[in-house]
Amino acid sequence: MPSPDIDFLLALADVADAETLPRFRNGAGVDNKLVAAFDPVTEADRAAELAIVSAIRGRYPEHAVLGEEYGLTGEGDRLWVIDPIDGTRAFIAGVPVWGTLVGYCEAGIARLGLMSQPFTGERFIADTDAAWLEHGGRRQRLAVRRTEELAAATLFTTTPRLFTGEALRRFEALESQARLTRFGVDCYAFCMLAAGHADLVVETGLKPYDIVALVPIIERAGGVITNFAGDRPEAGGDIVASATPVLHRQALDILNG
Amino acid sequence: MPSPDIDFLLALADVADAETLPRFRNGAGVDNKLVAAFDPVTEADRAAELAIVSAIRGRYPEHAVLGEEYGLTGEGDRLWVIDPIDGTRAFIAGVPVWGTLVGYCEAGIARLGLMSQPFTGERFIADTDAAWLEHGGRRQRLAVRRTEELAAATLFTTTPRLFTGEALRRFEALESQARLTRFGVDCYAFCMLAAGHADLVVETGLKPYDIVALVPIIERAGGVITNFAGDRPEAGGDIVASATPVLHRQALDILNG
Repeated sequence: MPSPDIDFLLALADVADAETLPRFRNGAGVDNKLVAAFDPVTEADRAAELAIVSAIRGRYPEHAVLGEEYGLTGEGDRLWVIDPIDGTRAFIAGVPVWGTLVGYCEAGIARLGLMSQPFTGERFIADTDAAWLEHGGRRQRLAVRRTEELAAATLFTTTPRLFTGEALRRFEALESQARLTRFGVDCYAFCMLAAGHADLVVETGLKPYDIVALVPIIERAGGVITNFAGDRPEAGGDIVASATPVLHRQALDILNG
Repeated sequence: MPSPDIDFLLALADVADAETLPRFRNGAGVDNKLVAAFDPVTEADRAAELAIVSAIRGRYPEHAVLGEEYGLTGEGDRLWVIDPIDGTRAFIAGVPVWGTLVGYCEAGIARLGLMSQPFTGERFIADTDAAWLEHGGRRQRLAVRRTEELAAATLFTTTPRLFTGEALRRFEALESQARLTRFGVDCYAFCMLAAGHADLVVETGLKPYDIVALVPIIERAGGVITNFAGDRPEAGGDIVASATPVLHRQALDILNG
């Protein structure tokens, strides 16, 4: 069995898109996964994860799979990590900045990544060599820009509500030094960084399925992505992605006080 | 000369899109309109406004035009109001939630509106009878949903940084009662409200060109849009748009303390 490749990732995007796109903006039922904190999960989320897992099982029955909706199945060093709809709040609000995330790890290191946004028709993909955007029938190499000054950096985070107390003070310190801050973009922000349109993404409390797929996309585009401690990001937690190592160090210094 | 109609709005979208879309994500020069506050203006902004104004002048030479970039020309009760790129920060960050806004007023009342987002291929349009979304060759009627409870409402605002002091406290009171809050969406948020995917949009310090085009889109979709005092929104300022009158009243009560 050959190792998974870009063509297989694109086949996974096809099966996911077939479940997500028809349900986007169709007013279908949304329910709450948690009672206390609003955390919408749509039918699309569940159906897309099942479709992706089924495709992986058919091709790589010996691989393990970790999904947002249905948890971990299988075991071993070869692991697929799936978030069928990252940005479910964007999804239910009709805003096409959500995406289907599929990552593939060997021995805990993310090697392949896919983010598919079917409404815009964009697929951000990475293998062990490079990262690309497929859009409108064209495949275009992704590369970060060479921003090394915070004062020139565009910063993304999903919401400033991620931060409280001292962490909020530190985030605001970072925000005050950046050129421009944008909120509300989830996985799309990491892809814009890989594509050279943004310079920093800061997110807290991420799960592995929120980030694994994006790691190869950032790294193959030339960017840096770690947790706040500067370690590998595959386990999730508090994460910073940066266009350059110099910028990354500045952001970590501020976020760590 | 017949009154302006949907076909003319769509022709304006064509000339604007031809200036904006080729410059989106192309890394072209961005400069600062203001030194103190970062306020990006792209070549696309200027070129699109000139193209729109030229098309209006060719067809309706007796009408006045107010544009974000080049100000007011002409005079009289028939006024076009143009923001060539609403959401310039989204534009320069590569996120397709910006739009070209063109509104048409008679005697100070917004009668026609266009929001064009060429990357997604969406055009939100309204005449004096109805509002529609054109996308993928289909024209679909826009209608708000009938949300009457804050606890069920999805709330949009561009950034919580719009608010300070007592206004921030009031906004946070509104946010705490809403079901879900999304940041970072500019004009796209108003269009999602008109399309029935969101229930409240709150923005402060708007100029006429930020809002006039969106007023007929909201109103013809069945929504309510006023300033915080409950008056007509065409002059801009602090604006609330709501899916229903009941929800609008609740939001105004909280935002006005």
